Amino acid sequence: MLSYDGTDYHGWQIQTRAQTVQGVLLETARRRLGPETRITGASRTDAGVHAIRQVASLTTTARVPSLGIRGALNADLPRDIRVLDVREASPGFDARRAAIGKRYAYLIDTGAIPNPFLLRYAWHVPRELDVDAMRRSLAPLRGQYDFSAFCAAPGRDKNPVCVVRAFHVIRRRERLALLISADRYLHHMVRNIVGSAVAVGRGAHDADWLRAVRASRDRTRAGPTAPAQGLALVRVLY
Amino acid sequence: MLSYDGTDYHGWQIQTRAQTVQGVLLETARRRLGPETRITGASRTDAGVHAIRQVASLTTTARVPSLGIRGALNADLPRDIRVLDVREASPGFDARRAAIGKRYAYLIDTGAIPNPFLLRYAWHVPRELDVDAMRRSLAPLRGQYDFSAFCAAPGRDKNPVCVVRAFHVIRRRERLALLISADRYLHHMVRNIVGSAVAVGRGAHDADWLRAVRASRDRTRAGPTAPAQGLALVRVLY
Repeated sequence: MLSYDGTDYHGWQIQTRAQTVQGVLLETARRRLGPETRITGASRTDAGVHAIRQVASLTTTARVPSLGIRGALNADLPRDIRVLDVREASPGFDARRAAIGKRYAYLIDTGAIPNPFLLRYAWHVPRELDVDAMRRSLAPLRGQYDFSAFCAAPGRDKNPVCVVRAFHVIRRRERLALLISADRYLHHMVRNIVGSAVAVGRGAHDADWLRAVRASRDRTRAGPTAPAQGLALVRVLY
Repeated sequence: MLSYDGTDYHGWQIQTRAQTVQGVLLETARRRLGPETRITGASRTDAGVHAIRQVASLTTTARVPSLGIRGALNADLPRDIRVLDVREASPGFDARRAAIGKRYAYLIDTGAIPNPFLLRYAWHVPRELDVDAMRRSLAPLRGQYDFSAFCAAPGRDKNPVCVVRAFHVIRRRERLALLISADRYLHHMVRNIVGSAVAVGRGAHDADWLRAVRASRDRTRAGPTAPAQGLALVRVLY
Protein backbone atom coordinates (compact mmCIF):
# COMPACT_ATOMS: atom_id res chain seq x y z
CA MET A 1 0.00 0.00 0.00
CA LEU A 2 1.37 3.39 -0.90
CA SER A 3 0.50 7.08 -0.86
CA TYR A 4 1.70 9.79 -3.20
CA ASP A 5 1.30 13.43 -4.06
CA GLY A 6 0.88 13.21 -7.85
CA THR A 7 1.70 16.88 -8.55
CA ASP A 8 5.18 16.26 -9.92
CA TYR A 9 4.45 13.01 -11.80
CA HIS A 10 3.10 12.21 -15.24
CA GLY A 11 0.68 9.77 -13.66
CA TRP A 12 1.14 6.20 -12.45
CA GLN A 13 1.89 4.32 -15.66
CA ILE A 14 5.56 3.93 -16.59
CA GLN A 15 6.74 6.01 -19.57
CA THR A 16 10.10 6.17 -21.26
CA ARG A 17 10.56 9.91 -21.32
CA ALA A 18 8.52 11.21 -18.36
CA GLN A 19 8.79 10.74 -14.61
CA THR A 20 5.93 8.56 -13.37
CA VAL A 21 5.10 6.99 -10.01
CA GLN A 22 5.39 3.42 -11.30
CA GLY A 23 8.64 4.32 -13.07
CA VAL A 24 10.23 5.81 -9.94
CA LEU A 25 9.00 2.91 -7.79
CA LEU A 26 10.26 0.29 -10.20
CA GLU A 27 13.66 1.92 -10.56
CA THR A 28 14.03 2.10 -6.79
CA ALA A 29 12.78 -1.45 -6.26
CA ARG A 30 15.07 -2.90 -8.94
CA ARG A 31 18.09 -1.17 -7.42
CA ARG A 32 17.20 -2.66 -4.06
CA LEU A 33 15.68 -6.01 -4.99
CA GLY A 34 17.19 -6.90 -8.33
CA PRO A 35 16.37 -6.39 -12.02
CA GLU A 36 13.67 -9.09 -12.06
CA THR A 37 11.35 -7.02 -9.88
CA ARG A 38 7.93 -6.16 -11.33
CA ILE A 39 5.25 -3.79 -10.06
CA THR A 40 1.55 -3.55 -10.98
CA GLY A 41 -0.73 -0.84 -9.59
CA ALA A 42 -4.44 -1.26 -8.88
CA SER A 43 -5.21 2.14 -10.38
CA ARG A 44 -3.43 3.88 -13.25
CA THR A 45 -3.87 7.39 -11.88
CA ASP A 46 -3.49 10.19 -14.44
CA ALA A 47 -0.87 12.95 -14.42
CA GLY A 48 -1.35 15.18 -11.36
CA VAL A 49 -3.81 12.79 -9.67
CA HIS A 50 -2.98 11.81 -6.08
CA ALA A 51 -3.27 8.57 -4.13
CA ILE A 52 -4.10 8.46 -0.45
CA ARG A 53 -4.02 4.67 -0.61
CA GLN A 54 -2.91 2.98 -3.79
CA VAL A 55 -2.26 -0.75 -3.83
CA ALA A 56 0.49 -2.27 -5.95
CA SER A 57 1.74 -5.83 -6.30
CA LEU A 58 5.49 -6.29 -6.32
CA THR A 59 7.09 -9.49 -7.59
CA THR A 60 10.71 -10.14 -6.76
CA THR A 61 13.13 -13.05 -6.70
CA ALA A 62 14.98 -11.45 -3.76
CA ARG A 63 14.48 -13.06 -0.37
CA VAL A 64 13.65 -10.25 2.03
CA PRO A 65 11.05 -9.89 4.78
CA SER A 66 8.18 -7.62 3.67
CA LEU A 67 8.87 -5.10 6.45
CA GLY A 68 12.42 -4.82 5.15
CA ILE A 69 11.06 -3.92 1.71
CA ARG A 70 9.08 -1.00 3.12
CA GLY A 71 12.12 0.51 4.82
CA ALA A 72 14.40 -0.13 1.85
CA LEU A 73 12.04 1.52 -0.62
CA ASN A 74 11.20 4.51 1.60
CA ALA A 75 14.90 5.16 2.19
CA ASP A 76 15.43 5.65 -1.56
CA LEU A 77 12.11 7.02 -2.83
CA PRO A 78 11.42 10.74 -3.19
CA ARG A 79 9.52 12.07 -0.18
CA ASP A 80 6.27 12.60 -2.11
CA ILE A 81 5.92 8.82 -2.59
CA ARG A 82 5.66 6.72 0.58
CA VAL A 83 5.22 3.00 1.00
CA LEU A 84 2.76 2.64 3.89
CA ASP A 85 2.62 -1.10 4.25
CA VAL A 86 4.04 -4.22 2.60
CA ARG A 87 2.44 -7.64 3.01
CA GLU A 88 3.16 -10.98 1.44
CA ALA A 89 0.52 -12.04 -1.06
CA SER A 90 -0.33 -15.45 -2.45
CA PRO A 91 1.51 -16.37 -5.67
CA GLY A 92 -0.07 -14.89 -8.77
CA PHE A 93 -1.75 -12.02 -6.91
CA ASP A 94 -2.23 -9.03 -9.20
CA ALA A 95 -3.27 -5.80 -7.45
CA ARG A 96 -5.16 -4.62 -10.51
CA ARG A 97 -7.03 -7.76 -11.50
CA ALA A 98 -7.87 -8.76 -7.91
CA ALA A 99 -9.50 -5.42 -7.03
CA ILE A 100 -13.30 -5.54 -6.76
CA GLY A 101 -13.69 -1.80 -6.53
CA LYS A 102 -12.08 1.58 -5.92
CA ARG A 103 -13.04 4.75 -4.14
CA TYR A 104 -12.04 8.19 -5.33
CA ALA A 105 -12.47 11.65 -3.81
CA TYR A 106 -12.64 14.89 -5.75
CA LEU A 107 -12.02 18.17 -3.93
CA ILE A 108 -13.44 21.54 -5.04
CA ASP A 109 -12.46 24.91 -3.54
CA THR A 110 -15.48 27.20 -3.90
CA GLY A 111 -13.94 30.22 -2.18
CA ALA A 112 -13.95 33.55 -4.01
CA ILE A 113 -10.16 33.62 -3.68
CA PRO A 114 -8.35 30.28 -4.23
CA ASN A 115 -6.95 28.85 -0.99
CA PRO A 116 -3.14 28.76 -1.47
CA PHE A 117 -2.93 25.52 0.54
CA LEU A 118 -5.27 23.73 -1.88
CA LEU A 119 -3.61 24.74 -5.17
CA ARG A 120 -2.19 21.25 -5.65
CA TYR A 121 -5.23 19.40 -4.27
CA ALA A 122 -8.44 21.06 -5.44
CA TRP A 123 -10.28 22.51 -8.41
CA HIS A 124 -11.05 26.18 -7.82
CA VAL A 125 -14.66 26.94 -8.77
CA PRO A 126 -15.27 30.43 -7.39
CA ARG A 127 -19.04 30.37 -7.06
CA GLU A 128 -21.84 29.11 -4.89
CA LEU A 129 -22.72 25.58 -5.98
CA ASP A 130 -26.17 24.11 -5.39
CA VAL A 131 -25.12 21.02 -3.45
CA ASP A 132 -28.64 19.73 -3.22
CA ALA A 133 -29.09 19.84 -6.99
CA MET A 134 -25.71 18.10 -7.40
CA ARG A 135 -26.82 15.31 -5.05
CA ARG A 136 -30.14 14.91 -6.85
CA SER A 137 -28.40 14.82 -10.23
CA LEU A 138 -25.93 12.14 -9.13
CA ALA A 139 -28.44 9.83 -7.43
CA PRO A 140 -29.76 8.25 -10.69
CA LEU A 141 -26.18 7.43 -11.75
CA ARG A 142 -25.97 4.86 -8.95
CA GLY A 143 -26.28 1.34 -10.30
CA GLN A 144 -25.07 -0.72 -13.24
CA TYR A 145 -25.00 1.36 -16.42
CA ASP A 146 -23.16 2.05 -19.63
CA PHE A 147 -21.07 5.11 -18.74
CA SER A 148 -19.85 5.86 -22.28
CA ALA A 149 -21.12 9.44 -21.99
CA PHE A 150 -18.44 10.03 -19.32
CA CYS A 151 -15.48 8.29 -20.93
CA ALA A 152 -12.35 10.09 -22.18
CA ALA A 153 -12.85 9.05 -25.81
CA PRO A 154 -15.48 6.77 -27.38
CA GLY A 155 -14.28 3.23 -27.99
CA ARG A 156 -11.24 3.51 -25.75
CA ASP A 157 -12.77 1.30 -23.07
CA LYS A 158 -13.85 -2.06 -24.42
CA ASN A 159 -16.46 -2.57 -21.73
CA PRO A 160 -18.32 0.66 -20.90
CA VAL A 161 -20.48 -0.88 -18.16
CA CYS A 162 -19.63 0.02 -14.53
CA VAL A 163 -21.43 -0.46 -11.26
CA VAL A 164 -21.43 2.78 -9.26
CA ARG A 165 -22.17 1.91 -5.64
CA ALA A 166 -22.18 5.34 -4.01
CA PHE A 167 -21.90 9.07 -4.51
CA HIS A 168 -21.49 11.46 -1.63
CA VAL A 169 -21.26 15.23 -1.80
CA ILE A 170 -19.92 16.79 1.38
CA ARG A 171 -19.67 20.53 1.94
CA ARG A 172 -17.58 22.12 4.67
CA ARG A 173 -17.36 25.88 4.52
CA GLU A 174 -15.74 26.69 1.18
CA ARG A 175 -14.70 23.14 0.37
CA LEU A 176 -16.75 20.56 -1.42
CA ALA A 177 -15.77 16.90 -1.64
CA LEU A 178 -17.34 14.46 -4.06
CA LEU A 179 -16.82 10.80 -3.16
CA ILE A 180 -17.47 7.98 -5.58
CA SER A 181 -17.30 4.23 -5.16
CA ALA A 182 -17.53 1.89 -8.15
CA ASP A 183 -16.37 -1.57 -9.24
CA ARG A 184 -14.40 -0.11 -12.17
CA TYR A 185 -14.02 3.17 -14.04
CA LEU A 186 -13.71 4.29 -17.64
CA HIS A 187 -10.80 6.60 -18.40
CA HIS A 188 -11.53 10.14 -17.06
CA MET A 189 -14.91 8.93 -15.79
CA VAL A 190 -14.69 10.54 -12.34
CA ARG A 191 -13.40 13.83 -13.71
CA ASN A 192 -16.11 13.93 -16.40
CA ILE A 193 -18.86 13.17 -13.88
CA VAL A 194 -17.48 15.87 -11.54
CA GLY A 195 -17.29 18.41 -14.39
CA SER A 196 -20.92 17.61 -15.26
CA ALA A 197 -22.12 17.69 -11.64
CA VAL A 198 -20.48 21.12 -11.22
CA ALA A 199 -22.35 22.32 -14.33
CA VAL A 200 -25.55 21.31 -12.51
CA GLY A 201 -24.33 22.90 -9.26
CA ARG A 202 -23.82 26.27 -10.90
CA GLY A 203 -27.24 26.10 -12.55
CA ALA A 204 -26.18 25.54 -16.18
CA HIS A 205 -28.38 22.43 -16.27
CA ASP A 206 -31.17 21.10 -14.08
CA ALA A 207 -30.74 18.05 -11.87
CA ASP A 208 -32.33 15.65 -14.41
CA TRP A 209 -29.75 16.46 -17.04
CA LEU A 210 -27.07 14.11 -15.73
CA ARG A 211 -29.34 11.08 -15.96
CA ALA A 212 -30.26 12.02 -19.53
CA VAL A 213 -26.59 12.45 -20.48
CA ARG A 214 -25.75 9.03 -19.04
CA ALA A 215 -28.67 7.42 -20.89
CA SER A 216 -27.57 9.02 -24.18
CA ARG A 217 -24.13 7.31 -23.99
CA ASP A 218 -22.97 10.32 -25.99
CA ARG A 219 -19.64 11.78 -24.79
CA THR A 220 -20.30 15.10 -26.53
CA ARG A 221 -23.27 15.80 -24.24
CA ALA A 222 -21.43 15.66 -20.88
CA GLY A 223 -19.76 18.60 -19.14
CA PRO A 224 -16.06 19.48 -19.25
CA THR A 225 -13.42 17.22 -17.66
CA ALA A 226 -12.59 18.47 -14.15
CA PRO A 227 -8.84 19.15 -13.71
CA ALA A 228 -6.57 16.37 -12.44
CA GLN A 229 -5.26 17.99 -9.24
CA GLY A 230 -8.61 17.70 -7.41
CA LEU A 231 -8.71 13.90 -7.76
CA ALA A 232 -7.34 11.35 -5.32
CA LEU A 233 -7.56 7.57 -5.18
CA VAL A 234 -8.80 6.91 -1.65
CA ARG A 235 -9.08 3.17 -1.41
CA VAL A 236 -8.84 -0.06 -3.37
CA LEU A 237 -11.33 -2.73 -2.37
CA TYR A 238 -10.56 -6.47 -2.39
CA MET B 1 -5.88 40.18 5.00
CA LEU B 2 -3.80 37.63 3.15
CA SER B 3 -2.94 33.95 3.08
CA TYR B 4 0.26 32.31 1.93
CA ASP B 5 2.06 29.01 1.69
CA GLY B 6 5.46 29.96 3.08
CA THR B 7 7.34 26.95 1.66
CA ASP B 8 9.08 28.85 -1.14
CA TYR B 9 9.79 32.08 0.77
CA HIS B 10 12.53 33.22 3.11
CA GLY B 11 9.89 34.42 5.54
CA TRP B 12 7.82 37.61 5.62
CA GLN B 13 10.44 40.30 6.16
CA ILE B 14 11.86 41.95 3.04
CA GLN B 15 15.49 41.03 2.21
CA THR B 16 17.71 42.26 -0.56
CA ARG B 17 18.93 38.92 -1.86
CA ALA B 18 16.16 36.45 -0.98
CA GLN B 19 12.53 36.10 -2.05
CA THR B 20 10.22 37.03 0.82
CA VAL B 21 6.46 37.47 1.11
CA GLN B 22 6.70 41.17 1.99
CA GLY B 23 9.21 41.67 -0.84
CA VAL B 24 6.99 40.03 -3.46
CA LEU B 25 3.91 41.87 -2.17
CA LEU B 26 5.65 45.23 -2.15
CA GLU B 27 7.09 44.79 -5.62
CA THR B 28 3.65 43.85 -6.97
CA ALA B 29 1.90 46.67 -5.10
CA ARG B 30 4.43 49.29 -6.25
CA ARG B 31 4.05 48.20 -9.86
CA ARG B 32 0.28 48.56 -9.55
CA LEU B 33 -0.09 51.47 -7.11
CA GLY B 34 3.09 53.49 -7.49
CA PRO B 35 6.55 53.64 -5.87
CA GLU B 36 5.31 55.37 -2.70
CA THR B 37 3.43 52.26 -1.57
CA ARG B 38 4.42 50.81 1.81
CA ILE B 39 3.44 47.54 3.47
CA THR B 40 3.70 46.46 7.13
CA GLY B 41 2.75 42.96 8.28
CA ALA B 42 1.30 42.12 11.70
CA SER B 43 3.56 39.06 12.01
CA ARG B 44 7.08 38.62 10.67
CA THR B 45 6.72 34.93 9.92
CA ASP B 46 10.00 33.00 9.56
CA ALA B 47 11.25 31.19 6.47
CA GLY B 48 8.93 28.29 5.64
CA VAL B 49 6.20 29.40 8.05
CA HIS B 50 2.70 29.73 6.60
CA ALA B 51 -0.12 32.21 7.12
CA ILE B 52 -3.75 31.22 6.99
CA ARG B 53 -4.70 34.81 7.83
CA GLN B 54 -1.98 37.43 7.98
CA VAL B 55 -2.91 41.11 8.25
CA ALA B 56 -0.85 43.81 6.56
CA SER B 57 -1.35 47.55 6.30
CA LEU B 58 -0.77 49.07 2.87
CA THR B 59 -0.22 52.80 2.44
CA THR B 60 -0.52 54.25 -1.02
CA THR B 61 -0.99 57.67 -2.63
CA ALA B 62 -2.93 56.04 -5.48
CA ARG B 63 -6.67 56.61 -5.50
CA VAL B 64 -8.25 53.22 -5.99
CA PRO B 65 -11.21 51.50 -4.33
CA SER B 66 -10.06 48.81 -1.87
CA LEU B 67 -11.81 46.03 -3.80
CA GLY B 68 -9.85 47.10 -6.87
CA ILE B 69 -6.62 46.64 -4.93
CA ARG B 70 -7.45 43.02 -4.09
CA GLY B 71 -8.06 42.13 -7.73
CA ALA B 72 -5.04 44.07 -8.97
CA LEU B 73 -2.67 42.40 -6.51
CA ASN B 74 -4.05 38.87 -6.97
CA ALA B 75 -3.75 39.23 -10.74
CA ASP B 76 0.01 39.78 -10.42
CA LEU B 77 1.01 37.82 -7.30
CA PRO B 78 2.30 34.25 -7.42
CA ARG B 79 -0.50 31.77 -6.70
CA ASP B 80 0.87 30.78 -3.28
CA ILE B 81 0.18 34.30 -1.96
CA ARG B 82 -3.46 35.44 -2.03
CA VAL B 83 -5.01 38.69 -0.86
CA LEU B 84 -8.28 37.63 0.79
CA ASP B 85 -9.73 40.98 1.71
CA VAL B 86 -8.82 44.67 1.51
CA ARG B 87 -10.48 47.30 3.71
CA GLU B 88 -9.84 50.96 4.19
CA ALA B 89 -8.26 51.78 7.56
CA SER B 90 -8.09 55.03 9.51
CA PRO B 91 -5.00 57.16 8.79
CA GLY B 92 -1.93 56.01 10.69
CA PHE B 93 -3.17 52.43 11.16
CA ASP B 94 -0.24 50.04 11.51
CA ALA B 95 -1.14 46.33 11.28
CA ARG B 96 1.75 45.40 13.56
CA ARG B 97 1.42 47.99 16.30
CA ALA B 98 -2.39 47.86 16.41
CA ALA B 99 -2.55 44.08 16.94
CA ILE B 100 -3.53 43.02 20.47
CA GLY B 101 -2.75 39.37 19.92
CA LYS B 102 -2.05 36.57 17.47
CA ARG B 103 -2.99 32.93 17.19
CA TYR B 104 -0.69 30.28 15.75
CA ALA B 105 -1.20 26.61 14.97
CA TYR B 106 1.53 23.99 14.87
CA LEU B 107 0.87 20.72 13.07
CA ILE B 108 2.61 17.42 13.89
CA ASP B 109 2.36 14.24 11.82
CA THR B 110 2.81 11.31 14.23
CA GLY B 111 2.34 8.56 11.64
CA ALA B 112 5.03 5.88 11.36
CA ILE B 113 5.44 6.87 7.70
CA PRO B 114 5.32 10.61 6.91
CA ASN B 115 2.11 11.59 5.11
CA PRO B 116 3.24 12.88 1.67
CA PHE B 117 0.46 15.49 1.70
CA LEU B 118 1.77 17.05 4.92
CA LEU B 119 5.46 17.34 3.97
CA ARG B 120 5.16 21.11 3.56
CA TYR B 121 2.79 21.61 6.49
CA ALA B 122 3.78 19.42 9.42
CA TRP B 123 6.67 18.19 11.57
CA HIS B 124 7.03 14.44 11.29
CA VAL B 125 7.46 12.89 14.76
CA PRO B 126 7.06 9.15 14.16
CA ARG B 127 6.05 8.04 17.63
CA GLU B 128 3.11 7.90 19.98
CA LEU B 129 2.96 11.18 21.92
CA ASP B 130 1.34 11.39 25.36
CA VAL B 131 -1.16 14.14 24.58
CA ASP B 132 -2.41 14.25 28.13
CA ALA B 133 1.10 14.90 29.49
CA MET B 134 1.60 17.59 26.84
CA ARG B 135 -1.62 19.32 27.92
CA ARG B 136 -0.64 19.13 31.59
CA SER B 137 2.82 20.51 30.85
CA LEU B 138 1.47 23.46 28.86
CA ALA B 139 -1.25 24.50 31.31
CA PRO B 140 1.12 26.31 33.75
CA LEU B 141 2.53 28.37 30.84
CA ARG B 142 -0.80 30.17 30.55
CA GLY B 143 -0.60 33.66 31.98
CA GLN B 144 1.79 36.59 32.05
CA TYR B 145 5.40 35.39 32.31
CA ASP B 146 8.95 36.04 31.25
CA PHE B 147 9.37 33.60 28.34
CA SER B 148 13.15 34.06 27.91
CA ALA B 149 13.65 30.30 28.20
CA PHE B 150 11.81 29.91 24.88
CA CYS B 151 13.37 32.77 22.91
CA ALA B 152 15.62 32.30 19.87
CA ALA B 153 18.65 33.92 21.50
CA PRO B 154 19.03 35.62 24.88
CA GLY B 155 18.76 39.40 24.74
CA ARG B 156 17.30 39.49 21.25
CA ASP B 157 13.86 40.53 22.51
CA LYS B 158 13.97 43.65 24.68
CA ASN B 159 10.81 42.76 26.55
CA PRO B 160 10.63 39.02 27.34
CA VAL B 161 7.20 39.19 29.02
CA CYS B 162 4.23 37.79 27.10
CA VAL B 163 0.67 36.96 28.07
CA VAL B 164 -0.28 33.49 26.82
CA ARG B 165 -4.07 33.26 26.80
CA ALA B 166 -4.60 29.71 25.60
CA PHE B 167 -3.02 26.44 24.59
CA HIS B 168 -4.97 23.67 22.95
CA VAL B 169 -3.67 20.28 21.89
CA ILE B 170 -5.95 18.49 19.46
CA ARG B 171 -5.38 14.96 18.20
CA ARG B 172 -7.09 13.49 15.20
CA ARG B 173 -5.82 10.08 14.17
CA GLU B 174 -2.15 10.55 13.30
CA ARG B 175 -2.23 14.34 13.34
CA LEU B 176 -1.67 16.54 16.32
CA ALA B 177 -2.32 20.28 16.31
CA LEU B 178 -1.05 22.63 18.98
CA LEU B 179 -2.85 25.99 19.10
CA ILE B 180 -1.50 28.98 20.98
CA SER B 181 -2.95 32.42 21.57
CA ALA B 182 -0.86 35.23 23.09
CA ASP B 183 -0.62 39.00 23.07
CA ARG B 184 2.90 38.89 21.62
CA TYR B 185 5.68 36.39 20.98
CA LEU B 186 9.44 36.24 21.35
CA HIS B 187 11.36 35.12 18.28
CA HIS B 188 10.97 31.32 17.79
CA MET B 189 8.82 31.16 20.94
CA VAL B 190 6.08 28.95 19.49
CA ARG B 191 8.56 26.57 17.86
CA ASN B 192 10.61 26.32 21.07
CA ILE B 193 7.52 25.64 23.18
CA VAL B 194 6.35 23.00 20.67
CA GLY B 195 9.79 21.35 20.64
CA SER B 196 9.72 21.22 24.44
CA ALA B 197 6.12 19.98 24.62
CA VAL B 198 7.00 17.17 22.19
CA ALA B 199 9.94 16.23 24.45
CA VAL B 200 7.35 15.82 27.22
CA GLY B 201 4.97 13.97 24.88
CA ARG B 202 7.59 11.34 24.05
CA GLY B 203 8.47 10.88 27.71
CA ALA B 204 11.92 12.54 27.78
CA HIS B 205 10.69 14.81 30.59
CA ASP B 206 7.75 14.73 32.95
CA ALA B 207 4.87 17.18 32.71
CA ASP B 208 6.26 19.54 35.38
CA TRP B 209 9.45 20.12 33.45
CA LEU B 210 8.04 22.80 31.13
CA ARG B 211 6.96 25.01 34.04
CA ALA B 212 10.43 24.69 35.60
CA VAL B 213 12.11 25.57 32.29
CA ARG B 214 9.93 28.67 31.92
CA ALA B 215 10.67 29.73 35.51
CA SER B 216 14.43 29.32 34.93
CA ARG B 217 14.39 31.85 32.05
CA ASP B 218 17.33 29.84 30.76
CA ARG B 219 17.25 29.18 26.99
CA THR B 220 19.69 26.29 27.30
CA ARG B 221 17.20 24.26 29.34
CA ALA B 222 14.35 24.17 26.80
CA GLY B 223 13.87 21.53 24.12
CA PRO B 224 14.88 21.82 20.44
CA THR B 225 13.22 24.32 18.09
CA ALA B 226 10.45 22.60 16.13
CA PRO B 227 10.91 22.96 12.34
CA ALA B 228 9.33 25.91 10.53
CA GLN B 229 7.06 24.06 8.11
CA GLY B 230 4.62 22.96 10.85
CA LEU B 231 3.85 26.51 11.93
CA ALA B 232 1.05 28.72 10.60
CA LEU B 233 -0.21 32.14 11.67
CA VAL B 234 -3.93 31.57 12.08
CA ARG B 235 -5.31 34.92 13.14
CA VAL B 236 -4.33 38.44 14.16
CA LEU B 237 -6.51 39.97 16.87
CA TYR B 238 -7.42 43.68 17.02
